[in-house]
Amino acid sequence: MSILVVGSVAFDTLKTPFGERKKILGGSATYFSLSASFFTPVRVVAVVGEDFTSEHEAVLTSHGIDTRGIEHATGNTFHWGGEYGENVNEAKTNFTDLNVFENFAPKIPALYDDTEVLFLGNIQPALQLDVRRKMPRVAMVGADTMNLWINITRADLLETLKEVDVLLINDGEAKLLTGEHSLVLAAKKILTLGPTSLVIKHGEYGATIFFADGSHPFRAPALPIAEVHDPTGAGDTFAGGFMGYIASQPKITPAVLKRAMFYGGVMGSFTVERFGTERLQSLTKEEIEERFKLFRSLTHLD
Amino acid sequence: MSILVVGSVAFDTLKTPFGERKKILGGSATYFSLSASFFTPVRVVAVVGEDFTSEHEAVLTSHGIDTRGIEHATGNTFHWGGEYGENVNEAKTNFTDLNVFENFAPKIPALYDDTEVLFLGNIQPALQLDVRRKMPRVAMVGADTMNLWINITRADLLETLKEVDVLLINDGEAKLLTGEHSLVLAAKKILTLGPTSLVIKHGEYGATIFFADGSHPFRAPALPIAEVHDPTGAGDTFAGGFMGYIASQPKITPAVLKRAMFYGGVMGSFTVERFGTERLQSLTKEEIEERFKLFRSLTHLD
Repeated sequence: MSILVVGSVAFDTLKTPFGERKKILGGSATYFSLSASFFTPVRVVAVVGEDFTSEHEAVLTSHGIDTRGIEHATGNTFHWGGEYGENVNEAKTNFTDLNVFENFAPKIPALYDDTEVLFLGNIQPALQLDVRRKMPRVAMVGADTMNLWINITRADLLETLKEVDVLLINDGEAKLLTGEHSLVLAAKKILTLGPTSLVIKHGEYGATIFFADGSHPFRAPALPIAEVHDPTGAGDTFAGGFMGYIASQPKITPAVLKRAMFYGGVMGSFTVERFGTERLQSLTKEEIEERFKLFRSLTHLD
Repeated sequence: MSILVVGSVAFDTLKTPFGERKKILGGSATYFSLSASFFTPVRVVAVVGEDFTSEHEAVLTSHGIDTRGIEHATGNTFHWGGEYGENVNEAKTNFTDLNVFENFAPKIPALYDDTEVLFLGNIQPALQLDVRRKMPRVAMVGADTMNLWINITRADLLETLKEVDVLLINDGEAKLLTGEHSLVLAAKKILTLGPTSLVIKHGEYGATIFFADGSHPFRAPALPIAEVHDPTGAGDTFAGGFMGYIASQPKITPAVLKRAMFYGGVMGSFTVERFGTERLQSLTKEEIEERFKLFRSLTHLD
C-alpha cells in the first residue's frame, strides 16, 4: 500500500561528541520517508524554501519517493540548530528558524487521493486533523506529536487523536499527555482517546506497543549501541520503518504490528550510526534484513 | 546444583503509595533465597538478632531453604526504613539500623562445602571476597554490589570482581563503576575486570546480559506493570530467579543464561505486586511457568 507522510523537510546544524555538520538535510518527513521507502511507495507533503536545491530533492527521489507534494515557497527552509552532550537523549536547541514552515498549510495533491496509509508527522495538531479529514478513505492513520503541542494545543491534539489509529510517542510525552507516572496506566488512558494501538518509545531500551482491545503488549528491543554519533531523526526513522512495513503488508494483523515494531527499531538503529540521513542514504535492503535477524537473536530464546 | 547465598536477612519498615508495613521480613539474602528456592536447593549465610523469631525463620524453611548458615547474634536484626513516592525507582531512606549486621563476619558451615553455585549478595566487597575464597571449588560465582561500595571501597571491589563469573548490577551502578555514559562501553570495561558475563538491570525496561567472549548480548523484558505496590527486593528476586534457574540446569550454556534472564524478570515481576515477600510466599511453580509464557509472548515474534 502507498503511504503519505506530512511533516517537515528541513535543514539541521548539529554538534555531537562525534563531530558537527552545517545545514544538512533533516526534518521529520525526510527521515520518515527515507526509512519507509525501503518497504513501500512513499509520498511527501511538506514545504521548503528557495535554499532547498534539486540535489536535496534528489536524496528523496533517488529512493523512489514521490516529492510532488513538496511545496516550494519564497524564503528559506526550516532550519534547526542544536547539540547533544554525552547524554544523547537530551538535545540543546541553539536556534529554531521556522522560515517557510511557520505558515505551512498542507496541500494534498489530487494525485495522492488513492493513498492507503497516512502518517501525520510532528506538526501542529490542527494541521494534522485538517490533513486527516482531507483523506477520509485511508485504511490506517499513524501520528506523532511532541511536548510542545501537548502543552499549548492540548484541545486540538485531543480532537486529532479521535481520528488516529496508531499514535507513536515517547515515555515523557505519554506521561505528560495523561498525567500518569506509570507507562501502563498512561497507555490505558491514551487508548480511550481514539487510537486503537499505541507505540511508546523508550529510547535505548526499545519500544512497547499497547492495544486497546486488551491483548498483551509487545516489546521490541533497541540495539545496544556503543556510540550514538547523532540521535537526530531516530524517532522519525522508527516511525518510517514501523509504518512502512505495515503498509507493505496485504493485511494489518497483530503479527504484522509486532514485526513492524522490530523494523522500526532496526531502521532507527541505522540512523544514529552516522550524522543526519547519511546512513539511510547508503543503506541496503540486505543490511536491513541482516539487522532484523540480529534483533531477533537479541530477544528470542531459540 | 545447590546454591549458597551470603547477604542480609533483615527487617524493613516501608511506605509506598499503596500502603505501609512495619518491620516485615526483608534483606537481600531473604529475597534471593525465596526466589531461587523455586528452582534449586538453597543455603543461606547471614546474621540475625534476637528479634528474629522462629516464625520468621519458618518463612524460609517452609520453602525448603537451609538456614543452618544463619548466625543468631546478641542484639537486634538489621532494620531498614524507607519510602517510595510516585516514582518507585527512587527510595528515600528514613533510617538504617545496622545492628548485628554491622559486625557481620560470614561463617560458612562445613556442611556447605559441597555447594556448587555461590551468590555474593550486596555486602562489603572484602567480605564477599573472603567468602568466595572460602569456597574455591564452586562451579560458578555470581555477585551484586551497590553505589556505596563502588564509591568507598572501589579497590576491594575490583579485587572481588577478579573472582566473580557473573555480576548483576543496574544502569547507574554500571556507569558509576566505569565512568562511561554508554551502557555498551560500560559493559565492555566491566567484562575486562573478571566477570565473563554481566547482567545490567534496566528497571521497568528489563535487563541485558553481555558476554566477554564477544557473542551478542541478550535482552529480557520486564513485565509492563500498572501498579508497583512495593519495589523492595525486586533486584534480589531477579538475581534469585536468574541464579536459581542456572543452578537447576545440568550445564551452563548460552541458552541456559538467556532463559535465566527471563526467569529473573518473571520472579521480579511477582515480588513488586505486593509488599515485602508476601507474593513470593504464596507463589506456585505453575504461576511461574504461566508468567514465563507471558514474557515470551511479550517479546517473541512467533
